[in-house]
Amino acid sequence: MKKILIASTALVATAGFAAAEVSFSGEAGFGVVYNDTAVNEWAPDYYTTLSVSMTGETDGGLSFGADFDITMDNGATAVGDTEVHIEGGFGKLTVGAVGSAVDATLGLGDIGYSGLGVDNVAEFMIDLNDAGNIMYKGSFGDFGVALSYDMNGAETFSIAATYAMGDYNFGLGYDDMVDGSSTIVVKAGGNFGDIALNGLYSRNSDNDATAYGVHAAYTMGAATISAAYSELTVGAASVDAFGLGVAYDLGGGASVNAGIGENMFGATVADLGIIMTF
Amino acid sequence: MKKILIASTALVATAGFAAAEVSFSGEAGFGVVYNDTAVNEWAPDYYTTLSVSMTGETDGGLSFGADFDITMDNGATAVGDTEVHIEGGFGKLTVGAVGSAVDATLGLGDIGYSGLGVDNVAEFMIDLNDAGNIMYKGSFGDFGVALSYDMNGAETFSIAATYAMGDYNFGLGYDDMVDGSSTIVVKAGGNFGDIALNGLYSRNSDNDATAYGVHAAYTMGAATISAAYSELTVGAASVDAFGLGVAYDLGGGASVNAGIGENMFGATVADLGIIMTF
Amino acid sequence: MKKILIASTALVATAGFAAAEVSFSGEAGFGVVYNDTAVNEWAPDYYTTLSVSMTGETDGGLSFGADFDITMDNGATAVGDTEVHIEGGFGKLTVGAVGSAVDATLGLGDIGYSGLGVDNVAEFMIDLNDAGNIMYKGSFGDFGVALSYDMNGAETFSIAATYAMGDYNFGLGYDDMVDGSSTIVVKAGGNFGDIALNGLYSRNSDNDATAYGVHAAYTMGAATISAAYSELTVGAASVDAFGLGVAYDLGGGASVNAGIGENMFGATVADLGIIMTF
Repeated sequence: MKKILIASTALVATAGFAAAEVSFSGEAGFGVVYNDTAVNEWAPDYYTTLSVSMTGETDGGLSFGADFDITMDNGATAVGDTEVHIEGGFGKLTVGAVGSAVDATLGLGDIGYSGLGVDNVAEFMIDLNDAGNIMYKGSFGDFGVALSYDMNGAETFSIAATYAMGDYNFGLGYDDMVDGSSTIVVKAGGNFGDIALNGLYSRNSDNDATAYGVHAAYTMGAATISAAYSELTVGAASVDAFGLGVAYDLGGGASVNAGIGENMFGATVADLGIIMTF
Repeated sequence: MKKILIASTALVATAGFAAAEVSFSGEAGFGVVYNDTAVNEWAPDYYTTLSVSMTGETDGGLSFGADFDITMDNGATAVGDTEVHIEGGFGKLTVGAVGSAVDATLGLGDIGYSGLGVDNVAEFMIDLNDAGNIMYKGSFGDFGVALSYDMNGAETFSIAATYAMGDYNFGLGYDDMVDGSSTIVVKAGGNFGDIALNGLYSRNSDNDATAYGVHAAYTMGAATISAAYSELTVGAASVDAFGLGVAYDLGGGASVNAGIGENMFGATVADLGIIMTF
Repeated sequence: MKKILIASTALVATAGFAAAEVSFSGEAGFGVVYNDTAVNEWAPDYYTTLSVSMTGETDGGLSFGADFDITMDNGATAVGDTEVHIEGGFGKLTVGAVGSAVDATLGLGDIGYSGLGVDNVAEFMIDLNDAGNIMYKGSFGDFGVALSYDMNGAETFSIAATYAMGDYNFGLGYDDMVDGSSTIVVKAGGNFGDIALNGLYSRNSDNDATAYGVHAAYTMGAATISAAYSELTVGAASVDAFGLGVAYDLGGGASVNAGIGENMFGATVADLGIIMTF
């Protein structure tokens, strides 16, 4: 008799979770970051992120929700990345700190514990235009599309289309930049057994700027070794960056990550740290 | 055997919830707000609120707890509205961001998605005195009483009494204002089938100021249509505001809300948005 | 059939909790604080703390996690005390707002609702050196050791060793101070039936400074009466503080606390408040 009562209580709780809930996840990490041009070459690094997700569903089957993060990055705290969305058969409409469609959809993987900035060279023009406060994302079979618009001041927009075909993925993006110029972005990637290869290319003809990058990752059991090279050319000037990294999956959501490389300023950079997900 | 173990675990969890817990709820919304006197007539709007509630109960049956909100309103974040309380047969004593007894007890409903400011005209003097950091609330059968006091600087107090009689409700309030004057507030309301009518009147003789407002709401299934009119008179000067709104309940905690009206500055205002509760 | 399904759901939830989770606890309080030298002798006081804990475990049995608090202290809010740690058979390594090893390990209990500052006199030099952003804690049978280091600027370190023997505890600490001097700390305590006695002594020869304090607590059922005396001597100058407090456990995590004493500035201080834990 008592047991039935308990089971009913659990049922109510379960039903409640499915209907409308506030849930939490998180990430944290600590390690050391090296830069041979910094005053203190070796610097400690630590951060935490608590992600809050509020979700619900209307009687008509429309999903709705809101998300935000409470973050601490080496002592500096913030409540941010707040978004509110509705989602249905038509796709997902999000308002808030959404960034740009191209930045949210097309990019290269990081190297090491802190990223080392290698992908940032390839994503230089994408990052420049990473602004927006409303975004639509839709998927049609293997095709995906994302559109973002910045209503505050800049009034720039960004469009990205993706296509997945088995182990291969392709992407095409268009960024309407703040300075009135436009950037075309092309991405292609594929998984070849234990090896994942990704390439990103972007071109802004108005400013005679070209950026590209390649990223390769090889997974052996719990370890993943990755290498990346990026180059940015504006007119006659050119900078590049490259790096080599390793991630070792400890299980349970934790991994040890290390990397070494040279960033776009010619500095030798390296890092080593543990990344935890909750 | 295993099943019994699981059921026992659930029992422990359930008992834990009843004893002392931290729980969460939330609200979020996005939409557009129109004001024909604004530089940008149509402005996007979005917000999120995570409400944290910590509750417990002493062995003697005294409830205690604390509440606060983590909010984001169009990009501005805050941790606020923090309160700590104890509650028992004597009533509820709350310390913190409690506002005034009259504001917490006597007021009119909002119109549309963002409120449009129609009720604010009727609540003008109440809002002026909405300060306090300690509040007592008690209920005696159909009667309720609330007292608040502002210990920091202003040292104003506020008293409200309410009486509920079936479908009807009545309220009487007294506000000791910062300028040494006092305001008397009277509220009356009733439900007549699908129609809810509420009226609010306040008078500050010392400043020859009178404010009043009426609010009517008609519910048809999932839709609620509401209309409101408010007027504020100070000496020979007078301003008014009015509005018409509709709310459509989508179920699961979400509703679509729209409103149109004229605010106290003579501007035409309108809004449309979705409000989500979690 | 249905019941079995529910029980299985509960099992999954239980397993999830054990693996990697975000959990919450809290504390809150309100009361009044008296100081006969303050402009407003009686001041209201209230605070809330929400503690967020994220924990996980690697496949190899290494525990990892991160913690932080969202606090409100008389209206001032903060996100702080953020730490990230790993823990295993080797001990616990924590990065972040860890303070000093001596402060984290060796100290005296508070008096009353807000502490009244009696223990702060005995802990004066310890508090001066309470800085650090990396700490190691290990235990070896009845022995414990803590080491902390401040990597940012100060580069001071702190070491503490503890030994527990049944009802008795002993501690020894060494603080490398910012001004180049060093402080030795000795602590001893014991439980004698319902009475707990603790003493703390610290000496900084470089500055000819000595601080000590004693704390006694007597528990009678739900009530605990405590008394403390502390003295700080620097060269020929000397200040002392003393206090008497009572805490009454209401059960369910709440207690009423009161204290009266004289602080190091010669002011008579007192307080009365309720402390709630969630």
